[in-house]
Amino acid sequence: MPTPIRVTVWNEFWHENPRHWDYVQRSWMSNGYSKESAIEETEGVREIYPDGIHEAIAAPLREHGFSVRTATLDEPQHGLSEAVLDATDVLIWWGHVVHDKVEDAVAERVYQRIVENGMGFIALHWGAGSKVFRKLMGTSCSLTPIVNGAPERLWVIEPAHPIAQGLETAFVVPQTEIYGEPFDIPAPDSIVFISSWPTGEVCRSGCCFQRGRGKIFFFRPGHETYPIFYQSEIQHVIANAARWAARDN
Amino acid sequence: MPTPIRVTVWNEFWHENPRHWDYVQRSWMSNGYSKESAIEETEGVREIYPDGIHEAIAAPLREHGFSVRTATLDEPQHGLSEAVLDATDVLIWWGHVVHDKVEDAVAERVYQRIVENGMGFIALHWGAGSKVFRKLMGTSCSLTPIVNGAPERLWVIEPAHPIAQGLETAFVVPQTEIYGEPFDIPAPDSIVFISSWPTGEVCRSGCCFQRGRGKIFFFRPGHETYPIFYQSEIQHVIANAARWAARDN
Amino acid sequence: MPTPIRVTVWNEFWHENPRHWDYVQRSWMSNGYSKESAIEETEGVREIYPDGIHEAIAAPLREHGFSVRTATLDEPQHGLSEAVLDATDVLIWWGHVVHDKVEDAVAERVYQRIVENGMGFIALHWGAGSKVFRKLMGTSCSLTPIVNGAPERLWVIEPAHPIAQGLETAFVVPQTEIYGEPFDIPAPDSIVFISSWPTGEVCRSGCCFQRGRGKIFFFRPGHETYPIFYQSEIQHVIANAARWAARDN
Amino acid sequence: MPTPIRVTVWNEFWHENPRHWDYVQRSWMSNGYSKESAIEETEGVREIYPDGIHEAIAAPLREHGFSVRTATLDEPQHGLSEAVLDATDVLIWWGHVVHDKVEDAVAERVYQRIVENGMGFIALHWGAGSKVFRKLMGTSCSLTPIVNGAPERLWVIEPAHPIAQGLETAFVVPQTEIYGEPFDIPAPDSIVFISSWPTGEVCRSGCCFQRGRGKIFFFRPGHETYPIFYQSEIQHVIANAARWAARDN
Repeated sequence: MPTPIRVTVWNEFWHENPRHWDYVQRSWMSNGYSKESAIEETEGVREIYPDGIHEAIAAPLREHGFSVRTATLDEPQHGLSEAVLDATDVLIWWGHVVHDKVEDAVAERVYQRIVENGMGFIALHWGAGSKVFRKLMGTSCSLTPIVNGAPERLWVIEPAHPIAQGLETAFVVPQTEIYGEPFDIPAPDSIVFISSWPTGEVCRSGCCFQRGRGKIFFFRPGHETYPIFYQSEIQHVIANAARWAARDN
Repeated sequence: MPTPIRVTVWNEFWHENPRHWDYVQRSWMSNGYSKESAIEETEGVREIYPDGIHEAIAAPLREHGFSVRTATLDEPQHGLSEAVLDATDVLIWWGHVVHDKVEDAVAERVYQRIVENGMGFIALHWGAGSKVFRKLMGTSCSLTPIVNGAPERLWVIEPAHPIAQGLETAFVVPQTEIYGEPFDIPAPDSIVFISSWPTGEVCRSGCCFQRGRGKIFFFRPGHETYPIFYQSEIQHVIANAARWAARDN
Repeated sequence: MPTPIRVTVWNEFWHENPRHWDYVQRSWMSNGYSKESAIEETEGVREIYPDGIHEAIAAPLREHGFSVRTATLDEPQHGLSEAVLDATDVLIWWGHVVHDKVEDAVAERVYQRIVENGMGFIALHWGAGSKVFRKLMGTSCSLTPIVNGAPERLWVIEPAHPIAQGLETAFVVPQTEIYGEPFDIPAPDSIVFISSWPTGEVCRSGCCFQRGRGKIFFFRPGHETYPIFYQSEIQHVIANAARWAARDN
Repeated sequence: MPTPIRVTVWNEFWHENPRHWDYVQRSWMSNGYSKESAIEETEGVREIYPDGIHEAIAAPLREHGFSVRTATLDEPQHGLSEAVLDATDVLIWWGHVVHDKVEDAVAERVYQRIVENGMGFIALHWGAGSKVFRKLMGTSCSLTPIVNGAPERLWVIEPAHPIAQGLETAFVVPQTEIYGEPFDIPAPDSIVFISSWPTGEVCRSGCCFQRGRGKIFFFRPGHETYPIFYQSEIQHVIANAARWAARDN
């Protein structure tokens, strides 16, 4: 039996954590959100992901046979010590509202593991705005977020790509936050998915990059106020991506 | 004053030509179209493009300062003699229903001019199904056409690309035939536009390729039953593309 | 235990086959070769590859755990019947002097298997000149061959690529025929190896392409008058490439 | 008459400046160089480039019709104030031994101009190690330098690329410092040149990248102890690259 691939799922874990609700709510309200929306971004998220988004991502990966641990912002070294990274083949990153609270030293350590040691890296949703992903890309990684709950249709552009195995030509995520083009990234090595919304927006939603020894995958869906990580196609894509991004694959 | 770029606009010119209406109508009806639709594909097209689609493409290029000639399927050698190709920097190709009537020798001559001599080539709409474009790509170039008149929104994915100069972030073509992904092409060297439709489809609608010495651009819009070539953004893109595809640029 | 990957090794098998020596020798002499060189291209090749180049390629693949069959030009349908292709995950192609004797129907069948069904395809050496590879590329695939026995140094440009696994930074093939740039191919999806020779030539020697559902790899070394396919690094690369090119990988 | 393209040539200007010879010599000697070699890296460089490398790069660009200014490390803000960058279409960067003395704020300003405003950027030789280029790439940009004076042969891999216009298939730089692969960069958008040396090394020596709105070109030759910037082919490539990298081109 082959050794299982070792995945670490990282989540900033503030939206779902009552200790940080005051901060998160103020943060959203200072960005023009109503009190009601700000509560949805805290209590609402907790309701959907009571154990944290990381656990919702980790559970199906365990069922797919990966060896999975989790790590969060509040842990010492954000849960990403040298020892943890030594035991990580692929790091999955979910972050949203406190990218700037990730210590530079930890971001640099993660970055080096990717480019020097070939640790795989999967940036989910606004993980694209994380220090690590931006450093890997060399661009702002900006795009235009629109929270509106519209359904997203993801089209498989490279049907023979390992990350698309087992999927139909397209699938729908019933409720999403729109992140629309222009998406300020370098031209990806491969574009696996392109999304559209009924409102007309599009996005290169599944993008592969090689940087140094590391394989990197960006996957667009994953907004915190919708139960996206419980959807089987989403879980399937993340599992495919983790296998693809693992070392020496 | 620099020498103007010499463009030849090729059109199969059967939809708009009463001499071929019987053939074209039978062809559509054998594909399951109603008599009414088949008439729209002949008389309807002529109404929109009374002088032929080629003239609608050529006129604005002349205004943009290009030296433009046209050529059509019924001319000897389809209007693409050695002499004509000698005097062509960029060939624009609109074809739809009679790709198979293009002689292999002419298709081969055009192909050689592109890869050997660096003649630029712009395939409009189902010009992607032409013998020349398919040979250049090495793939089927198939996609899923749906005639429905839906509006198409084209997003600029590479805002700094020469073909995107002078455009807004996105523009809409009010009525189009949908050509949806999966689009069976090699990964383009650059993707300038991605389209979406309210029905959920997407398409890599502006794609650049280098093959041998030739620059090649595919541009998706251009269905014959809509007045697409009269839209200023479309004319602007075609002019930008012609400048980009010209030799030694 | 996983099912072994099924590889078919195709060789035109004329250089090594006395039945064809008259043809092969005349062919080389009509290209300006001396009688002595022409003999080296027949008797000399047979001495190095007494069972045919295909067997030299097949044997180490069997040791690597692949399920391997061989096929050659003289067999009915060149050994590439529908049934054989049904049972082939990856087709390896060695051809040199009689590309034009491959029937168009067989070349088309192989091509369709690649782009439609995702059969992997590995073109060795002047397999780049085969009908199938040229059709896949859409270009002439020409380069500048110089037979001189110079050593070739292959550098790993993408050290994390599956095809480079287990290799050092560079390795040397002691005697090769030079195929120099410019090499008329589309920009590859990945360049795994770049070669140099002491005479100054370079070549993109390991190139990956996706076309339709099929993965394609070009590997430059493999001249018939040198014992290249007995070198362990070469065997290692071909085995890596076959695993990479197999369906759904 | 079109407005000339405005180029700023930046040079750290320490090797050629007696004020810094003590520092430069100590630096080289601490890296294991002999006193003699360290002197070659100062007095020797000044002999070849008495007015500084920047002037040797600037002069032929002026002859090609560009509007050229220069800037160096010792100037206030390294000569790269907002006003200078406002008046710069393309920035050419030569740096070698004191990359770390470029202030972060200036590097960030230059970076932002590239990705946000579309200023072109040309990194010459070990300009690849500059803060700006590394940030753009997201990788270490390391390669293996070997000072030995060997001739470098540069092959044109994309003969139709604007940067290759007017060049032969290959040209030789008589004396160079070798920078060999592996070169730790993302896969370039285009590879225009690949180099080889008689010692067997190779390098992707002319590489194009798009990052945000900016066009970026890396050009490998340019070691300070050889008169490389006086060679007409080198001047020709830099002029072609400056035209290519200029905004909206």
